[in-house]
Amino acid sequence: MSIKIAIVYHSGYGHTAVVAQHVAKGAGEVQGVEAALYKAEDLASPDKGPWDQLAAADAIVFGAPTYMGSASAPFKQFADASSKVWFGQGWKDKLAAGFTNSGSWSGDKLNTLMQFAILAAQHGMNWVNLGLMPGFNKKGSTPEDLNRVGSYLGLMTQANIDEGPETAPISSDRKTAELFGRRVAEAAVRWTKGK
Amino acid sequence: MSIKIAIVYHSGYGHTAVVAQHVAKGAGEVQGVEAALYKAEDLASPDKGPWDQLAAADAIVFGAPTYMGSASAPFKQFADASSKVWFGQGWKDKLAAGFTNSGSWSGDKLNTLMQFAILAAQHGMNWVNLGLMPGFNKKGSTPEDLNRVGSYLGLMTQANIDEGPETAPISSDRKTAELFGRRVAEAAVRWTKGK
Amino acid sequence: MSIKIAIVYHSGYGHTAVVAQHVAKGAGEVQGVEAALYKAEDLASPDKGPWDQLAAADAIVFGAPTYMGSASAPFKQFADASSKVWFGQGWKDKLAAGFTNSGSWSGDKLNTLMQFAILAAQHGMNWVNLGLMPGFNKKGSTPEDLNRVGSYLGLMTQANIDEGPETAPISSDRKTAELFGRRVAEAAVRWTKGK
Amino acid sequence: MSIKIAIVYHSGYGHTAVVAQHVAKGAGEVQGVEAALYKAEDLASPDKGPWDQLAAADAIVFGAPTYMGSASAPFKQFADASSKVWFGQGWKDKLAAGFTNSGSWSGDKLNTLMQFAILAAQHGMNWVNLGLMPGFNKKGSTPEDLNRVGSYLGLMTQANIDEGPETAPISSDRKTAELFGRRVAEAAVRWTKGK
Repeated sequence: MSIKIAIVYHSGYGHTAVVAQHVAKGAGEVQGVEAALYKAEDLASPDKGPWDQLAAADAIVFGAPTYMGSASAPFKQFADASSKVWFGQGWKDKLAAGFTNSGSWSGDKLNTLMQFAILAAQHGMNWVNLGLMPGFNKKGSTPEDLNRVGSYLGLMTQANIDEGPETAPISSDRKTAELFGRRVAEAAVRWTKGK
Repeated sequence: MSIKIAIVYHSGYGHTAVVAQHVAKGAGEVQGVEAALYKAEDLASPDKGPWDQLAAADAIVFGAPTYMGSASAPFKQFADASSKVWFGQGWKDKLAAGFTNSGSWSGDKLNTLMQFAILAAQHGMNWVNLGLMPGFNKKGSTPEDLNRVGSYLGLMTQANIDEGPETAPISSDRKTAELFGRRVAEAAVRWTKGK
Repeated sequence: MSIKIAIVYHSGYGHTAVVAQHVAKGAGEVQGVEAALYKAEDLASPDKGPWDQLAAADAIVFGAPTYMGSASAPFKQFADASSKVWFGQGWKDKLAAGFTNSGSWSGDKLNTLMQFAILAAQHGMNWVNLGLMPGFNKKGSTPEDLNRVGSYLGLMTQANIDEGPETAPISSDRKTAELFGRRVAEAAVRWTKGK
Repeated sequence: MSIKIAIVYHSGYGHTAVVAQHVAKGAGEVQGVEAALYKAEDLASPDKGPWDQLAAADAIVFGAPTYMGSASAPFKQFADASSKVWFGQGWKDKLAAGFTNSGSWSGDKLNTLMQFAILAAQHGMNWVNLGLMPGFNKKGSTPEDLNRVGSYLGLMTQANIDEGPETAPISSDRKTAELFGRRVAEAAVRWTKGK
């Protein structure tokens, strides 16, 4: 039996999609774990889309760019559509985690991660965080440090607003995303084993 | 010359619409102030809708139900669409304020108000709060107290999930909404006079 | 081998202490679980107090009244003192949860729970939420409903500002606290078993 | 008659003190404005310290380092001590604003700014934000950009953890602090004139 990690994300310009892929890659490298990507746009209505696959997941990871200080509208449509699942507490006791990208370093991304953590809590899902110490905060340290943005509640990445997803976010953020995916997957294995 | 208060709101089941009307009523009672209601759905795209009227407003009040722990998706579509205004900082130095309704007493409504305050800050809009002491927190006090939910950053109302907008939220919340509208209007008068 | 739940709390007037005791009671009723209460004041410095016992705990539950919109100062002194543990990531992969009390129904308690969740995330501790649907939100429902405040991220209780801890918070909040303690304990058992 | 800006801050290692001085400098450059610095430690009790001077201020700016995800404990002691003022709503209708420093770029500083905004709201104080577009988010842009951290709700600065306040935070943060002080001062002039 394999452990399933579902990554539900929205990406406006492709940067968050790249991050989602690296989260999936890191999760999938854990033995016995399968990670799958789902577009929030395909889950905009409670009556259509791969809701059954989310129901079968052991952990659901939320991902969206931070637009105007919170998760993008297409992600929020998915979140609102999940109220049908919420009503029956269908995701209760699954694990959850989250990631977000923006052009600025802070860029109010923490508010998006909080929004995700609160969404998870309404669903009764326990929350897995990033679990990495911050980088790029010493004399001589560089943006090539892992967790260069200095996040804890989930994964934060930064993509220059005039660069496409081929180059932004930079490689350290992509590696951080893989470690984050791995952490969520390992937590899901442990949580499932302990049942 | 009159001071203009624009109230941009979304309402799913009519409760938030009732609150919006009472906010408008309170604001409109201040001398020299005109309050107007705008549906977030009519501002879902940056290229369509009454954006000119928002540009002409002295204060913009954000209103939405709290769904799954944050402002409803239709409101968020308006917020994202406002990024075009943000890019030119078109609302800079206006005033802003916010209100939200949910079925539960806390119901994570504070997160929606924070989301509004952060949205306002991205626009460079200064934030006006509720300005009322909390009620319904003493022996013998009742839900007929003003600010019975005990909010500060903005207005919170509570509507029973099995009641329609004819009766929910109750009259104390409606009176609180009027005082909130008045407070925002008075702040807009003062802020405009001081220019 | 028993599972250990450490409850670190501050209480200014005794209400939060009562809640802490009910959280401990609920946790202790789970087979194989021992719950212990620690005063934040005894952990105000990194070099003094029962830090070893926190190090040995499987889950740490944070509790404090919400004062002026966030966790009380004596709790915050403990949180700051825990930066020594943070530096060595000594609590990484433990579980965490939180509760808060205030006089008002909302009373900005959500901000305190977020503060706790962020503190936990900095420590790399995964977060267990309340896991109860909200009450007191229907025609004819009463404050005797469980989770009457309508919280998700953790436990919120409400104590009238002119009542002592003998009677406030009311019994439904105390029962909710017990269920919350039980939930955290069951999660700690599962998380430890799955290791 | 001069406009008075009170800056209440705590600084653990001197970085936040430097930022506070630059905020004061920027505020003091506005005609008719006097800015004064107050240490949070001197306001730890409601019965001692320069509370009269805060009462006489037109705007109060809150400043603290972000420790373990929220404002430092000495600042929180001041915030709790201000509950006596809150009870009489002594600061109602003043302006408020806030700034915070940490070693990491995000470093959960947004949570500290939210904590400040909520504290201000409890006092009925309207909130002035940073009002600068974000920098350091384009190809070829550097940390010498203003608002390099990308903050909106207030001022965020970043100081390397192995550098003292002589060199950290860097000059762009200090210039940003001056512009922030200027913005708060200009808002206070306008708000007072409009009375």
